[in-house]
Amino acid sequence: MKNEWKRRTHEPLIETPVFNVRRDQKVKDESPREKDFYVIEAVDWVNVIPITREEEVVLIELHRHGTDELSLEIPGGMIDPEDPSPLAAAQRELREETGYGSDPLVPLGVVHPNPAIQNNRCYTFLAPNARLVGEQDPDEGESITVVKTPLSQVPQLIHDGRITHSLVIAGFFWYYLGETLIP
Amino acid sequence: MKNEWKRRTHEPLIETPVFNVRRDQKVKDESPREKDFYVIEAVDWVNVIPITREEEVVLIELHRHGTDELSLEIPGGMIDPEDPSPLAAAQRELREETGYGSDPLVPLGVVHPNPAIQNNRCYTFLAPNARLVGEQDPDEGESITVVKTPLSQVPQLIHDGRITHSLVIAGFFWYYLGETLIP
Repeated sequence: MKNEWKRRTHEPLIETPVFNVRRDQKVKDESPREKDFYVIEAVDWVNVIPITREEEVVLIELHRHGTDELSLEIPGGMIDPEDPSPLAAAQRELREETGYGSDPLVPLGVVHPNPAIQNNRCYTFLAPNARLVGEQDPDEGESITVVKTPLSQVPQLIHDGRITHSLVIAGFFWYYLGETLIP
Repeated sequence: MKNEWKRRTHEPLIETPVFNVRRDQKVKDESPREKDFYVIEAVDWVNVIPITREEEVVLIELHRHGTDELSLEIPGGMIDPEDPSPLAAAQRELREETGYGSDPLVPLGVVHPNPAIQNNRCYTFLAPNARLVGEQDPDEGESITVVKTPLSQVPQLIHDGRITHSLVIAGFFWYYLGETLIP
Protein backbone atom coordinates (compact mmCIF):
# COMPACT_ATOMS: atom_id res chain seq x y z
CA MET A 1 0.00 0.00 0.00
CA LYS A 2 1.61 3.27 -1.06
CA ASN A 3 1.38 6.59 0.76
CA GLU A 4 -1.63 8.32 -0.75
CA TRP A 5 -1.13 11.53 1.23
CA LYS A 6 0.78 14.58 0.02
CA ARG A 7 1.69 17.36 2.43
CA ARG A 8 0.73 20.81 1.17
CA THR A 9 1.73 22.97 4.15
CA HIS A 10 3.21 22.56 7.59
CA GLU A 11 3.01 25.10 10.34
CA PRO A 12 4.72 25.07 13.76
CA LEU A 13 2.15 25.69 16.51
CA ILE A 14 4.00 25.46 19.83
CA GLU A 15 7.47 24.73 21.13
CA THR A 16 8.20 23.27 24.55
CA PRO A 17 11.41 21.84 26.07
CA VAL A 18 10.09 18.29 25.58
CA PHE A 19 8.04 18.40 22.38
CA ASN A 20 6.76 20.71 19.65
CA VAL A 21 3.44 20.56 17.85
CA ARG A 22 2.93 21.29 14.15
CA ARG A 23 -0.06 21.23 11.83
CA ASP A 24 0.22 19.53 8.44
CA GLN A 25 -2.29 20.17 5.70
CA LYS A 26 -2.45 17.15 3.42
CA VAL A 27 -4.43 15.99 0.41
CA LYS A 28 -5.20 12.44 -0.63
CA ASP A 29 -4.42 11.35 -4.18
CA GLU A 30 -7.85 11.52 -5.65
CA SER A 31 -9.44 14.22 -3.54
CA PRO A 32 -8.89 17.97 -3.73
CA ARG A 33 -10.02 18.40 -0.12
CA GLU A 34 -7.36 19.32 2.42
CA LYS A 35 -7.26 17.65 5.83
CA ASP A 36 -5.39 18.85 8.92
CA PHE A 37 -3.12 16.55 10.91
CA TYR A 38 -1.47 17.53 14.18
CA VAL A 39 1.94 16.04 14.89
CA ILE A 40 3.83 15.99 18.19
CA GLU A 41 7.51 16.33 17.28
CA ALA A 42 10.01 14.99 19.79
CA VAL A 43 13.61 13.83 19.76
CA ASP A 44 14.13 10.10 20.10
CA TRP A 45 13.94 8.63 23.59
CA VAL A 46 15.79 5.82 25.36
CA ASN A 47 15.04 3.55 28.25
CA VAL A 48 17.20 0.97 29.95
CA ILE A 49 16.57 -2.22 31.95
CA PRO A 50 19.36 -2.44 34.55
CA ILE A 51 19.78 -5.96 35.94
CA THR A 52 22.07 -6.61 38.89
CA ARG A 53 24.15 -9.75 39.51
CA GLU A 54 21.45 -10.73 42.03
CA GLU A 55 18.75 -10.76 39.30
CA GLU A 56 17.21 -7.54 40.55
CA VAL A 57 15.97 -4.80 38.24
CA VAL A 58 16.82 -1.22 39.21
CA LEU A 59 13.47 0.59 38.96
CA ILE A 60 12.85 4.24 39.72
CA GLU A 61 9.83 5.98 41.20
CA LEU A 62 9.14 9.62 40.40
CA HIS A 63 6.36 12.15 40.14
CA ARG A 64 5.03 12.41 36.57
CA HIS A 65 3.39 15.64 35.56
CA GLY A 66 1.27 14.22 32.72
CA THR A 67 -0.78 12.11 35.10
CA ASP A 68 0.19 14.12 38.22
CA GLU A 69 0.92 10.80 39.93
CA LEU A 70 3.88 8.75 41.09
CA SER A 71 5.10 6.31 38.46
CA LEU A 72 7.26 3.19 38.79
CA GLU A 73 9.52 2.96 35.75
CA ILE A 74 12.87 1.98 34.33
CA PRO A 75 15.45 4.75 33.86
CA GLY A 76 15.29 6.69 30.60
CA GLY A 77 14.82 10.01 28.91
CA MET A 78 15.48 12.13 25.87
CA ILE A 79 18.53 11.73 23.65
CA ASP A 80 20.44 15.01 24.07
CA PRO A 81 22.22 16.70 21.14
CA GLU A 82 25.51 15.98 22.97
CA ASP A 83 24.85 12.24 23.19
CA PRO A 84 26.98 10.50 20.54
CA SER A 85 24.43 7.64 20.19
CA PRO A 86 21.19 6.27 21.66
CA LEU A 87 23.33 3.79 23.62
CA ALA A 88 25.38 6.61 25.14
CA ALA A 89 22.18 8.45 26.06
CA ALA A 90 20.86 5.34 27.83
CA GLN A 91 24.13 4.96 29.74
CA ARG A 92 23.97 8.64 30.77
CA GLU A 93 20.34 8.42 31.89
CA LEU A 94 21.08 5.25 33.89
CA ARG A 95 23.94 7.01 35.65
CA GLU A 96 22.06 10.28 36.29
CA GLU A 97 18.77 8.78 37.43
CA THR A 98 20.07 5.89 39.54
CA GLY A 99 23.82 6.33 40.19
CA TYR A 100 24.30 2.91 38.56
CA GLY A 101 26.74 1.79 35.91
CA SER A 102 26.83 -1.57 34.16
CA ASP A 103 28.67 -3.78 31.71
CA PRO A 104 28.28 -2.58 28.10
CA LEU A 105 24.65 -1.96 27.23
CA VAL A 106 22.89 -4.37 24.89
CA PRO A 107 20.30 -3.01 22.38
CA LEU A 108 16.98 -4.83 22.84
CA GLY A 109 14.61 -3.09 20.43
CA VAL A 110 13.05 0.08 19.10
CA VAL A 111 9.39 1.19 19.20
CA HIS A 112 7.35 4.14 18.03
CA PRO A 113 5.74 5.65 21.15
CA ASN A 114 2.70 6.62 19.07
CA PRO A 115 2.98 6.62 15.25
CA ALA A 116 -0.49 8.16 14.94
CA ILE A 117 0.49 11.50 16.45
CA GLN A 118 4.22 11.40 17.28
CA ASN A 119 7.21 11.27 14.95
CA ASN A 120 9.81 9.82 17.31
CA ARG A 121 11.20 6.48 18.42
CA CYS A 122 12.17 4.95 21.75
CA TYR A 123 15.20 2.64 22.07
CA THR A 124 15.38 0.05 24.85
CA PHE A 125 18.69 -1.27 26.17
CA LEU A 126 19.65 -3.96 28.66
CA ALA A 127 22.24 -2.93 31.28
CA PRO A 128 23.81 -6.18 32.49
CA ASN A 129 25.65 -6.51 35.78
CA ALA A 130 24.29 -3.17 37.00
CA ARG A 131 26.00 -1.82 40.12
CA LEU A 132 26.06 1.39 42.13
CA VAL A 133 28.98 3.56 41.04
CA GLY A 134 28.12 6.95 42.54
CA GLU A 135 25.49 9.48 43.50
CA GLN A 136 22.36 10.21 41.49
CA ASP A 137 22.53 13.38 39.41
CA PRO A 138 18.94 14.01 38.36
CA ASP A 139 17.67 16.94 36.27
CA GLU A 140 16.89 20.08 38.23
CA GLY A 141 13.69 19.71 40.23
CA GLU A 142 13.44 15.92 39.81
CA SER A 143 13.27 13.66 42.87
CA ILE A 144 13.90 10.07 41.91
CA THR A 145 13.71 7.12 44.29
CA VAL A 146 15.63 3.98 43.30
CA VAL A 147 13.56 0.83 43.90
CA LYS A 148 15.56 -2.39 43.50
CA THR A 149 13.11 -5.19 42.79
CA PRO A 150 13.51 -8.91 42.03
CA LEU A 151 13.27 -9.26 38.26
CA SER A 152 10.86 -12.16 38.76
CA GLN A 153 8.30 -9.73 40.23
CA VAL A 154 8.03 -7.54 37.13
CA PRO A 155 5.10 -9.39 35.47
CA GLN A 156 3.19 -9.22 38.78
CA LEU A 157 3.93 -5.48 39.13
CA ILE A 158 2.50 -4.93 35.64
CA HIS A 159 -0.46 -7.21 36.38
CA ASP A 160 -1.18 -5.29 39.61
CA GLY A 161 -1.09 -1.91 37.88
CA ARG A 162 2.05 -0.78 39.72
CA ILE A 163 3.95 -0.41 36.44
CA THR A 164 1.67 1.33 33.90
CA HIS A 165 3.97 3.24 31.51
CA SER A 166 3.44 1.76 28.04
CA LEU A 167 7.05 2.38 26.98
CA VAL A 168 8.30 0.57 30.07
CA ILE A 169 6.00 -2.38 29.37
CA ALA A 170 7.06 -2.43 25.70
CA GLY A 171 10.68 -2.41 26.93
CA PHE A 172 10.03 -5.46 29.10
CA PHE A 173 8.30 -7.13 26.14
CA TRP A 174 11.59 -6.75 24.27
CA TYR A 175 13.48 -8.09 27.29
CA TYR A 176 11.31 -11.22 27.55
CA LEU A 177 11.53 -11.66 23.78
CA GLY A 178 15.34 -11.57 24.05
CA GLU A 179 15.22 -14.12 26.86
CA THR A 180 12.93 -16.22 24.61
CA LEU A 181 10.40 -16.31 27.43
CA ILE A 182 7.81 -15.20 24.88
CA PRO A 183 7.61 -18.13 22.48
CA MET B 1 6.68 9.66 48.62
CA LYS B 2 4.09 12.39 48.61
CA ASN B 3 3.39 14.83 45.80
CA GLU B 4 5.65 17.80 46.48
CA TRP B 5 4.31 19.84 43.57
CA LYS B 6 1.52 22.39 43.81
CA ARG B 7 -0.07 23.78 40.66
CA ARG B 8 -0.27 27.58 40.65
CA THR B 9 -1.72 28.20 37.17
CA HIS B 10 -2.82 26.24 34.15
CA GLU B 11 -3.25 27.67 30.69
CA PRO B 12 -4.69 26.00 27.58
CA LEU B 13 -2.28 26.42 24.65
CA ILE B 14 -3.80 24.56 21.69
CA GLU B 15 -6.81 22.41 20.89
CA THR B 16 -6.87 19.75 18.18
CA PRO B 17 -9.41 17.00 17.41
CA VAL B 18 -7.12 14.38 18.97
CA PHE B 19 -5.36 16.17 21.84
CA ASN B 20 -4.99 19.53 23.57
CA VAL B 21 -1.88 20.99 25.15
CA ARG B 22 -1.81 23.03 28.36
CA ARG B 23 0.93 24.65 30.41
CA ASP B 24 0.99 24.17 34.19
CA GLN B 25 3.02 26.42 36.43
CA LYS B 26 3.98 24.53 39.58
CA VAL B 27 6.05 25.10 42.68
CA LYS B 28 7.81 22.51 44.80
CA ASP B 29 7.20 22.48 48.55
CA GLU B 30 10.34 24.16 49.71
CA SER B 31 11.14 26.37 46.74
CA PRO B 32 9.48 29.61 45.69
CA ARG B 33 10.63 29.12 42.09
CA GLU B 34 7.94 28.28 39.54
CA LYS B 35 8.52 25.64 36.90
CA ASP B 36 6.56 25.11 33.67
CA PHE B 37 5.20 21.71 32.68
CA TYR B 38 3.52 21.00 29.34
CA VAL B 39 0.75 18.40 29.36
CA ILE B 40 -0.86 16.67 26.36
CA GLU B 41 -4.50 16.17 27.30
CA ALA B 42 -6.34 13.38 25.52
CA VAL B 43 -9.42 11.27 26.12
CA ASP B 44 -8.76 7.66 27.06
CA TRP B 45 -7.96 5.25 24.25
CA VAL B 46 -8.78 1.59 23.62
CA ASN B 47 -7.23 -1.18 21.62
CA VAL B 48 -8.41 -4.71 21.00
CA ILE B 49 -6.74 -8.02 20.13
CA PRO B 50 -9.20 -9.93 17.91
CA ILE B 51 -8.45 -13.66 17.80
CA THR B 52 -10.28 -15.93 15.35
CA ARG B 53 -11.27 -19.57 15.92
CA GLU B 54 -8.28 -20.46 13.74
CA GLU B 55 -5.86 -18.74 16.17
CA GLU B 56 -5.29 -15.83 13.85
CA VAL B 57 -5.06 -12.23 15.03
CA VAL B 58 -6.90 -9.62 12.98
CA LEU B 59 -4.28 -6.91 12.43
CA ILE B 60 -4.74 -3.71 10.45
CA GLU B 61 -2.31 -1.73 8.35
CA LEU B 62 -2.81 1.99 7.85
CA HIS B 63 -0.93 5.18 7.12
CA ARG B 64 0.06 7.00 10.30
CA HIS B 65 0.60 10.73 10.11
CA GLY B 66 2.89 11.05 13.15
CA THR B 67 5.61 8.98 11.48
CA ASP B 68 4.23 9.45 7.94
CA GLU B 69 4.63 5.69 7.45
CA LEU B 70 2.49 2.58 7.21
CA SER B 71 1.94 0.91 10.56
CA LEU B 72 0.83 -2.65 11.39
CA GLU B 73 -1.40 -2.53 14.45
CA ILE B 74 -4.37 -3.95 16.29
CA PRO B 75 -7.68 -2.08 15.95
CA GLY B 76 -8.28 0.77 18.38
CA GLY B 77 -8.94 4.45 18.85
CA MET B 78 -10.36 7.16 21.03
CA ILE B 79 -13.27 6.61 23.43
CA ASP B 80 -16.06 8.82 22.02
CA PRO B 81 -18.41 10.76 24.33
CA GLU B 82 -21.23 8.52 23.04
CA ASP B 83 -19.46 5.30 24.03
CA PRO B 84 -21.08 3.99 27.22
CA SER B 85 -17.84 2.32 28.35
CA PRO B 86 -14.26 1.57 27.25
CA LEU B 87 -15.43 -1.94 26.35
CA ALA B 88 -18.16 -0.54 24.09
CA ALA B 89 -15.63 1.76 22.45
CA ALA B 90 -13.34 -1.20 21.75
CA GLN B 91 -16.23 -3.16 20.24
CA ARG B 92 -17.13 -0.18 18.04
CA GLU B 93 -13.55 0.35 16.87
CA LEU B 94 -13.20 -3.36 16.07
CA ARG B 95 -16.35 -3.24 13.97
CA GLU B 96 -15.53 0.03 12.19
CA GLU B 97 -11.88 -0.67 11.43
CA THR B 98 -12.14 -4.36 10.47
CA GLY B 99 -15.79 -5.32 9.93
CA TYR B 100 -15.29 -7.98 12.62
CA GLY B 101 -17.43 -8.84 15.62
CA SER B 102 -16.59 -11.30 18.39
CA ASP B 103 -17.80 -13.01 21.51
CA PRO B 104 -17.98 -10.62 24.50
CA LEU B 105 -14.76 -8.66 24.92
CA VAL B 106 -12.47 -9.51 27.84
CA PRO B 107 -10.57 -6.68 29.60
CA LEU B 108 -6.83 -7.44 29.60
CA GLY B 109 -5.22 -4.38 31.17
CA VAL B 110 -4.77 -0.64 31.29
CA VAL B 111 -1.63 1.44 30.62
CA HIS B 112 -0.63 5.07 30.64
CA PRO B 113 0.60 5.87 27.11
CA ASN B 114 3.10 8.35 28.59
CA PRO B 115 2.63 9.54 32.20
CA ALA B 116 5.46 12.08 31.80
CA ILE B 117 3.60 14.26 29.31
CA GLN B 118 0.11 12.76 28.77
CA ASN B 119 -2.81 12.51 31.15
CA ASN B 120 -4.72 9.65 29.56
CA ARG B 121 -4.98 5.87 29.70
CA CYS B 122 -5.27 3.11 27.12
CA TYR B 123 -7.43 0.02 27.74
CA THR B 124 -6.68 -3.28 26.00
CA PHE B 125 -9.35 -5.90 25.37
CA LEU B 126 -9.31 -9.42 23.97
CA ALA B 127 -11.96 -10.15 21.30
CA PRO B 128 -12.39 -13.92 21.33
CA ASN B 129 -13.87 -15.89 18.42
CA ALA B 130 -13.54 -12.89 16.11
CA ARG B 131 -15.41 -13.24 12.80
CA LEU B 132 -16.33 -11.06 9.86
CA VAL B 133 -19.83 -9.65 10.31
CA GLY B 134 -19.97 -6.86 7.71
CA GLU B 135 -18.17 -4.12 5.86
CA GLN B 136 -15.51 -1.85 7.32
CA ASP B 137 -16.74 1.63 8.25
CA PRO B 138 -13.55 3.63 8.85
CA ASP B 139 -13.34 7.32 9.77
CA GLU B 140 -13.43 9.74 6.86
CA GLY B 141 -10.19 9.71 4.92
CA GLU B 142 -8.81 6.53 6.56
CA SER B 143 -7.81 3.55 4.41
CA ILE B 144 -7.39 0.45 6.53
CA THR B 145 -6.19 -2.92 5.26
CA VAL B 146 -7.13 -5.98 7.33
CA VAL B 147 -4.18 -8.37 7.71
CA LYS B 148 -5.13 -11.71 9.26
CA THR B 149 -2.00 -13.23 10.74
CA PRO B 150 -1.29 -16.43 12.70
CA LEU B 151 -1.16 -15.41 16.36
CA SER B 152 2.05 -17.44 16.73
CA GLN B 153 3.83 -14.99 14.41
CA VAL B 154 3.26 -11.91 16.58
CA PRO B 155 6.51 -12.11 18.60
CA GLN B 156 8.45 -12.49 15.33
CA LEU B 157 6.64 -9.50 13.79
CA ILE B 158 7.65 -7.40 16.81
CA HIS B 159 11.19 -8.78 16.73
CA ASP B 160 11.48 -7.95 13.01
CA GLY B 161 10.27 -4.36 13.52
CA ARG B 162 7.05 -4.92 11.55
CA ILE B 163 4.95 -4.07 14.63
CA THR B 164 6.46 -1.00 16.32
CA HIS B 165 3.56 0.82 18.06
CA SER B 166 4.33 0.80 21.79
CA LEU B 167 0.66 0.62 22.77
CA VAL B 168 0.17 -2.42 20.53
CA ILE B 169 3.23 -4.11 22.04
CA ALA B 170 2.03 -3.25 25.58
CA GLY B 171 -1.35 -4.75 24.62
CA PHE B 172 0.31 -7.99 23.55
CA PHE B 173 2.29 -7.97 26.80
CA TRP B 174 -1.05 -8.01 28.61
CA TYR B 175 -2.28 -10.78 26.31
CA TYR B 176 0.73 -13.01 27.00
CA LEU B 177 0.46 -12.21 30.71
CA GLY B 178 -3.17 -13.39 30.62
CA GLU B 179 -2.13 -16.56 28.83
CA THR B 180 0.57 -16.99 31.54
CA LEU B 181 3.15 -17.22 28.75
CA ILE B 182 5.14 -14.61 30.66
CA PRO B 183 6.11 -16.38 33.89
